[in-house]
Amino acid sequence: MTESSLTVSDSVMREVRDMAYDARISSRALARADTAWKNRGLQAIAEDLVEQSSVILARNADDVHRERANGMSEAMLDRLSLNPQRIQELADSLHALVGLADPVGQVIRGATLDNGLRMVQTRVPLGVVGAIYEARPNVTVDIAGLAIKSGNAVMLRGGSAAAKTNQTISRIIRAALDRCGLPMDCVQSVDEFGREGANALMLATGAIDVLIPRGGHNLIQSVVKNARVPVIETGEGNCHIFVDISASEKMAKDILVNAKTQRPGTCNTVETLLLAEGSNAAPAVLKALAQAGVTLHVDERTSARLPAGIEYVQATEEDFHTEYGSLDLAVATVDDVDAAISHIRRYSTGHSEAIVTNSLDHAEKFIQEVDSAAVYVNASTRFTDGGQFGLGAEVGISTQKLHARGPMGLEQLTTSKWIVRGDGQTRR
Amino acid sequence: MTESSLTVSDSVMREVRDMAYDARISSRALARADTAWKNRGLQAIAEDLVEQSSVILARNADDVHRERANGMSEAMLDRLSLNPQRIQELADSLHALVGLADPVGQVIRGATLDNGLRMVQTRVPLGVVGAIYEARPNVTVDIAGLAIKSGNAVMLRGGSAAAKTNQTISRIIRAALDRCGLPMDCVQSVDEFGREGANALMLATGAIDVLIPRGGHNLIQSVVKNARVPVIETGEGNCHIFVDISASEKMAKDILVNAKTQRPGTCNTVETLLLAEGSNAAPAVLKALAQAGVTLHVDERTSARLPAGIEYVQATEEDFHTEYGSLDLAVATVDDVDAAISHIRRYSTGHSEAIVTNSLDHAEKFIQEVDSAAVYVNASTRFTDGGQFGLGAEVGISTQKLHARGPMGLEQLTTSKWIVRGDGQTRR
Repeated sequence: MTESSLTVSDSVMREVRDMAYDARISSRALARADTAWKNRGLQAIAEDLVEQSSVILARNADDVHRERANGMSEAMLDRLSLNPQRIQELADSLHALVGLADPVGQVIRGATLDNGLRMVQTRVPLGVVGAIYEARPNVTVDIAGLAIKSGNAVMLRGGSAAAKTNQTISRIIRAALDRCGLPMDCVQSVDEFGREGANALMLATGAIDVLIPRGGHNLIQSVVKNARVPVIETGEGNCHIFVDISASEKMAKDILVNAKTQRPGTCNTVETLLLAEGSNAAPAVLKALAQAGVTLHVDERTSARLPAGIEYVQATEEDFHTEYGSLDLAVATVDDVDAAISHIRRYSTGHSEAIVTNSLDHAEKFIQEVDSAAVYVNASTRFTDGGQFGLGAEVGISTQKLHARGPMGLEQLTTSKWIVRGDGQTRR
Repeated sequence: MTESSLTVSDSVMREVRDMAYDARISSRALARADTAWKNRGLQAIAEDLVEQSSVILARNADDVHRERANGMSEAMLDRLSLNPQRIQELADSLHALVGLADPVGQVIRGATLDNGLRMVQTRVPLGVVGAIYEARPNVTVDIAGLAIKSGNAVMLRGGSAAAKTNQTISRIIRAALDRCGLPMDCVQSVDEFGREGANALMLATGAIDVLIPRGGHNLIQSVVKNARVPVIETGEGNCHIFVDISASEKMAKDILVNAKTQRPGTCNTVETLLLAEGSNAAPAVLKALAQAGVTLHVDERTSARLPAGIEYVQATEEDFHTEYGSLDLAVATVDDVDAAISHIRRYSTGHSEAIVTNSLDHAEKFIQEVDSAAVYVNASTRFTDGGQFGLGAEVGISTQKLHARGPMGLEQLTTSKWIVRGDGQTRR
């Protein structure tokens, strides 16, 4: 028997629905606000965050202190921690949003029909966006800013580790909106309800238009599996690079070292290297990775041909499913491009995959047959990013196929409305 | 406590997953087939359906005979019944698909970045589409045709009432595909598993890319509520028309009679008429509707001002939630355009709403504040339709906000893939 369930008390469900109702009312006012007004709101938030840095930092220090005592790892503590420079970066990201085109009101297509009906399909905000995320308090500012610019209200549920920081940031954002005459209930937090708050967001059908989970594998899969409201799955990246038999040694080395080590914690980092049997580039690539501090988890076919002196660990099946987020890399040797594509189909999360090759045939085959959000020929997977792709700020990188695929910008926080003007037309 | 669950036996789940796996393999071949080849497949299906009409009609007669004995209503029996003309119409709809643009391979946007990376975002098929629908056997042909043209495999689950007809049609479609060298497993039916087959489709995460329910309210809501795979909600239309105080009497009469009576069973038929208090057009509109055979379910404010001699029934709260699909109409009198918008927010399914007015202010307010897939000024809601909108064949009319909103054509059965070509670019 397959089944699943999610529970939340009636009282929390009712409270979260009430809050979402207020968010809905506010979202209507925000949807009518012009771009200049929304931009003034974003600038006011940016200014207030910097001005009230000392308050934010004090509450953040409380969170860090408590979580350190709870045994949080240094890497996680670093993600949780703010400092004056990081607060300035949050403000800068809001200023950058000001410069982006407002998707609301854009006309997607239009026509005047034979019967004289004048139709336009225009972009409108989704309405109420939910966000469930983990310890990084910058997500609070990111998502709130993106929601405001795209005319949406947002219901936030951050991790408990950053509770005090998030609470302070939310308060500052709401006050800044209010000062600009924008509806403060466009930004609301359900953190006070703990895990039940997250569950209520997942179950609030009709009240939440889309839920965006941001965080690790477990968080995202739990939301995808349990939510009753529409979800956009983001950021799971078990990315592959295939070094074809005709790959240039230098290109393969450069791309692999970059894709693995340039920022290993990101979702577009390569996690599995596939080597074509007989590839001349393979030894140099493996050596370069080892020299760059990468721990190689290699399959048997690869270990049999590793150059002397390279340390490695034997890969298990589990390695090929793992998004390490660290300087670890799974390595397998495969027969050819077809075998590489088969491997990718089996293990990939559909984020980003690359081939390094000099064969036009193999490049086109790889592009055609690999079913991922981004497919690269002779470039690093690290480019899959809204900023790099020229889309501006990024809501996340969607690994699903509906609504949005790949880097999601402001446009993906909108839907469309057909507006049809006539003078009495009826259908025959 | 809020919770939900869905059950299916392990053996059916396994079988349906195996079938979906075959569908996935086939979808890859279909995704590579060029437009001309897919069009030959559609033409072959159309020819075979007509050529084998007598077999289809014999099996359809079995279904109709059995369901009549089971007490199915004449209206439903009519939807279930095929005849030579209806089979010809099915063939015609396939020929019409041949003439439509193929969305696969269309370039959505592209750029060459500063670093020389050449990027294009192209349309690709979703992969495996699931369809759960009720007694109309034409849906089998419709959905299969749309899926094939857009390069997708499809898993069908039709209602048990049409089981023999659907089985025969599926067999003919598969044989025609095979004859053209297209993979026959692109069209598969899970009808043999009954309700469990539907449940398995809803739970087949990773195997089904999108599930499209087509049918009545209960079917659609059951799928939306229970499915674990992404769903596109279609065709729930509790549509409203608001007759403003400045509405032209003739225009209001024409539009209402058309929107209610031209084809009452469709989802874009008006189900609630809202009359502005003091509207001079109201009496004539109500009279015209009554003369056209419409049963008026009116609220107290309206009954107090009904012209003499018009029969009516008193409306209950339930009427305003009801998609009648018949010559019944709920009627309420409201204070003004704001009250009309509030009513629509409360009861609408977000399909199509119209205002009849001569006030530019009220028209713009209505357009801005009514949050539905299609919003009309001075035209019948009956126009919300892929064919009428010039989008060609229609998968359904989406009343959700993600991925597709309003009439869905072939394009909405695709997703996108970013293809990035470089010559060794790495990220700084």
